[in-house]
Amino acid sequence: MFIPLLFIFSLLFASSQASVVDFCVADLSLPDGPAGYPCKKPSTVTENDFAYSGLVPGNTSNIIKAAVTPAFVAQFPGVNGLGISVARLDLAVDGVIPMHTHPGASEILVVIEGTICAGFISSFDNVIYLKTLNKGDIMIFPQGLLHFQINSGTTTALAYASFSSPFPGLQVTDFAFFKNNLPTELLAKTTFLDIAQIKKLKAVLGGTN
Amino acid sequence: MFIPLLFIFSLLFASSQASVVDFCVADLSLPDGPAGYPCKKPSTVTENDFAYSGLVPGNTSNIIKAAVTPAFVAQFPGVNGLGISVARLDLAVDGVIPMHTHPGASEILVVIEGTICAGFISSFDNVIYLKTLNKGDIMIFPQGLLHFQINSGTTTALAYASFSSPFPGLQVTDFAFFKNNLPTELLAKTTFLDIAQIKKLKAVLGGTN
Amino acid sequence: MFIPLLFIFSLLFASSQASVVDFCVADLSLPDGPAGYPCKKPSTVTENDFAYSGLVPGNTSNIIKAAVTPAFVAQFPGVNGLGISVARLDLAVDGVIPMHTHPGASEILVVIEGTICAGFISSFDNVIYLKTLNKGDIMIFPQGLLHFQINSGTTTALAYASFSSPFPGLQVTDFAFFKNNLPTELLAKTTFLDIAQIKKLKAVLGGTN
Amino acid sequence: MFIPLLFIFSLLFASSQASVVDFCVADLSLPDGPAGYPCKKPSTVTENDFAYSGLVPGNTSNIIKAAVTPAFVAQFPGVNGLGISVARLDLAVDGVIPMHTHPGASEILVVIEGTICAGFISSFDNVIYLKTLNKGDIMIFPQGLLHFQINSGTTTALAYASFSSPFPGLQVTDFAFFKNNLPTELLAKTTFLDIAQIKKLKAVLGGTN
Amino acid sequence: MFIPLLFIFSLLFASSQASVVDFCVADLSLPDGPAGYPCKKPSTVTENDFAYSGLVPGNTSNIIKAAVTPAFVAQFPGVNGLGISVARLDLAVDGVIPMHTHPGASEILVVIEGTICAGFISSFDNVIYLKTLNKGDIMIFPQGLLHFQINSGTTTALAYASFSSPFPGLQVTDFAFFKNNLPTELLAKTTFLDIAQIKKLKAVLGGTN
Amino acid sequence: MFIPLLFIFSLLFASSQASVVDFCVADLSLPDGPAGYPCKKPSTVTENDFAYSGLVPGNTSNIIKAAVTPAFVAQFPGVNGLGISVARLDLAVDGVIPMHTHPGASEILVVIEGTICAGFISSFDNVIYLKTLNKGDIMIFPQGLLHFQINSGTTTALAYASFSSPFPGLQVTDFAFFKNNLPTELLAKTTFLDIAQIKKLKAVLGGTN
Repeated sequence: MFIPLLFIFSLLFASSQASVVDFCVADLSLPDGPAGYPCKKPSTVTENDFAYSGLVPGNTSNIIKAAVTPAFVAQFPGVNGLGISVARLDLAVDGVIPMHTHPGASEILVVIEGTICAGFISSFDNVIYLKTLNKGDIMIFPQGLLHFQINSGTTTALAYASFSSPFPGLQVTDFAFFKNNLPTELLAKTTFLDIAQIKKLKAVLGGTN
Repeated sequence: MFIPLLFIFSLLFASSQASVVDFCVADLSLPDGPAGYPCKKPSTVTENDFAYSGLVPGNTSNIIKAAVTPAFVAQFPGVNGLGISVARLDLAVDGVIPMHTHPGASEILVVIEGTICAGFISSFDNVIYLKTLNKGDIMIFPQGLLHFQINSGTTTALAYASFSSPFPGLQVTDFAFFKNNLPTELLAKTTFLDIAQIKKLKAVLGGTN
Repeated sequence: MFIPLLFIFSLLFASSQASVVDFCVADLSLPDGPAGYPCKKPSTVTENDFAYSGLVPGNTSNIIKAAVTPAFVAQFPGVNGLGISVARLDLAVDGVIPMHTHPGASEILVVIEGTICAGFISSFDNVIYLKTLNKGDIMIFPQGLLHFQINSGTTTALAYASFSSPFPGLQVTDFAFFKNNLPTELLAKTTFLDIAQIKKLKAVLGGTN
Repeated sequence: MFIPLLFIFSLLFASSQASVVDFCVADLSLPDGPAGYPCKKPSTVTENDFAYSGLVPGNTSNIIKAAVTPAFVAQFPGVNGLGISVARLDLAVDGVIPMHTHPGASEILVVIEGTICAGFISSFDNVIYLKTLNKGDIMIFPQGLLHFQINSGTTTALAYASFSSPFPGLQVTDFAFFKNNLPTELLAKTTFLDIAQIKKLKAVLGGTN
Repeated sequence: MFIPLLFIFSLLFASSQASVVDFCVADLSLPDGPAGYPCKKPSTVTENDFAYSGLVPGNTSNIIKAAVTPAFVAQFPGVNGLGISVARLDLAVDGVIPMHTHPGASEILVVIEGTICAGFISSFDNVIYLKTLNKGDIMIFPQGLLHFQINSGTTTALAYASFSSPFPGLQVTDFAFFKNNLPTELLAKTTFLDIAQIKKLKAVLGGTN
Repeated sequence: MFIPLLFIFSLLFASSQASVVDFCVADLSLPDGPAGYPCKKPSTVTENDFAYSGLVPGNTSNIIKAAVTPAFVAQFPGVNGLGISVARLDLAVDGVIPMHTHPGASEILVVIEGTICAGFISSFDNVIYLKTLNKGDIMIFPQGLLHFQINSGTTTALAYASFSSPFPGLQVTDFAFFKNNLPTELLAKTTFLDIAQIKKLKAVLGGTN
């Protein structure tokens, strides 16, 4: 008696299953488009496409004493088309994530260990919103606005940042200004920074011109 | 005197015509992406890409006494990128469309023949919204919420369901729970259903483990 | 033993329930915005907000021998924010839904009774896509393009049109041209229609100037 | 010499500042709409609107041995309009977050402590994607699909879930089926569950009818 | 001392750079999709992809004494995925851009030289909004609505039109009605225009049937 | 014979007209939301809501020798909900629009008079895309990326910038860093700028701390 139900159910909805687009794991071998990457065929997708173990502790033995480890669509193709991604932030004592923006996403930071002083700057009268966040605290950074995080405690800090896009982008102001061949004269004119200051930071970050 | 107008009009807007994307009939032979399928070349598109005659009466000679016939993007490529699709519902006397969700779309049901008792369950305090619909009545089922339709009349019922997406998805709760290899123990733990109940329905629907 | 589960479950998720926005039934007494109307309080919403019985047969005893009865957000507030709406089309023998566009939505037509000749015009080389639709046939009209429906059979025709927006808009070309105070000279200049033709149709439709 | 620059800069961009909508902290006292809540006036917004300390450890002394603590727009108005939110998950040993969906969002889970077995069910052939996640692992749950998390380790587990919406919604299948007044007969017909099973779980969860 | 910073910064964010989708210059050699064209590889993109010199003065030595020169995605691939495009309008004395719609975009017109009388027609009671625009004036035309521009001054007029889409579409009513093989009978029925008027304009614009 | 048509047409579509949301002119007296401002009642809207004459020449008698005059939703409420806005840029000889971002929009610049050197910086390897634009040239600046414009010619320059949002936002890096009370120490730590440089620019721009 139950066999017919099984048989008929299978037939019944069979055709609709071909049109299900529950997910769209990125096929990174194909060109992406404005909405993300083309999807891998569902039949080739496994549970490993939806989980990721690459958010390991970053190496903070560097001058900023910090590391950012992303799980964006390029690292974690399972998030393609789903409007979300994550990154891990490690900050040693005195560690700093310098001023930056995410051109295409808002961010929520969750502090897991340590104490982080974080802030963002609004374009409304250039107000700065600054908070000291302890373990378990969260903070939101609205899309596209300049923000930063620094370890303001006496121990290592760990946090996870979630983004409202699979490819939030990351524009570090110092890199944008000093780590390319943007002519010094032009940079001075458009930032009001002194030539000497620009040359100093271009030297540090490998910029030319 | 009229010839020049024809000639010049043709030239005038010629270049803009290459950029018209009035529609995007799905090329199902190419991989889809988060926004749908790549478009067929406009020059190969005909009127037959925009009409569909496949919404024929479904076979309801089965235990649920019902049939769902979709015109989603996989069946009707003309809806690709246009934010809408349709399905036909046939319910014999005592027919049932069991509890299900559409993960990616809201639905409007239009009753064409017969009487249908339909309902959906909100996550706000788990309120159930239940209506008996007669010929000509319509009902909206908000995106992603559990809902069902049953023939509550004494004759065959026919309805059309419209969806706010070309690929609304369809997750039948019974299929999700009992028609796969999800381990019985795990299912019991996460649904509070009795082991015996789970085994019974897995047997009916072909689930294993 | 079961009481605690009930008790604790209730507490457990209580706070999240306040943030559920499963649906947003329009409060038509408040001003709308770009995304639709503000929501009625969930506690005042009933099953009657999600069903609608107003799609009754339209009166086709008129010169176009046709009637359009909408269930857009103004008539059926339950669709607010859900990306979909519906209208009923009645066409007596020789009935015509004249050339029009929906500025904000694509449309799927489902023919329930009779035979309808429908078409739309692409801006790609002004191609016309024309189909004769019988009972059960469907056709898609991409957003914003000029289209029409006429009863091409020998009996009354009935169809339902679904739209990819709760407020699809409706711009009938004849009304836009001839049923207002757009100066005849200006209309002639911008449409190439003869003055006599314009005056004739302005007289029919009540236009002035 | 510098004074004029200050003076003139202030004037220069003054009018554009009034139109900045960098953020839109929810004014929960006003009715929400399809896109979220109206914004508080920027002048009344402080840094406290952008940070939240309410994600405290949940009380897991209950039968599911688990707790979900949300920071959705209702708890954390700063996320309004920004496409993202967060929740904290506490699972004691043997703790379970039962089968549920988020009708309006995808989710990324980050495991902070312990071991979690998590899975979701696709509507494509009802495939189950199941993973055991250890500290630091992440998993994505696509929008609207049934999923669950259980503590599969020998210690307490802690995780944060991020969502691609400020109001992701939360529909627990057991609550939707058994924690309301949905008639037992109707539920049996639409879920194929036995009457006895339904009555048992209605008793546990406080459902009637 | 500076070298390590350079070295480490480079490593630090290296992996995230692969996922940046700051822009998506259209690869017009590949099929487009609902969201636009696939992206060219960032490494092949140059500054010339982001600038365009093709908006040269149009030839207005024609009967409408006007020319539209578009910089839509087909002409200017750099706008792909960015939600905006531009066109140049040249109107000689007595020049006319005839009644048309953009099915997929709103438009802002900026008058650079001369005097333009522009108008659009709402579907709300068919109200016409008509303005005479002088040098420096701007006007907004909401998405999908019929509108036109005529040179109402005594000198050549120049304007730029910006659109809220990289492929706004362009449907000129006269072309849609008279510049194809739409049968005269059908057109008469659906527009109420006289057969003679239709035949006259079909002759002008090259329509058949 | 024509009178009935007029009469019946009026009745026929009357109910649908109430639901038309062709446009949504901002009512700036009400609180805005994530999608923009509530709409003025259509009956109070006039042609003056859709045109704007406020893009007058800016006063460039200042140190940057430049002026930005916006027609965003706050100045030009007619663009509300329509995904587009415009600003006028005046640059005297040697004028500079300093480094800035628009957090919520892409921009197209159209040069009307003079010669402008414009550039933006990608976050992909910090590449700078730099172009000299002459009269009639256009350039696209993708959303959220740092960019600037300078008058690189020998005469006054005039340009119009269109944005893919009614409220694109405007964050000038110098203002964000130096024109508020962001502590100098914190700014030095997060930008690597020298304390002396920061103090100098804070003095110029009126920053404290």
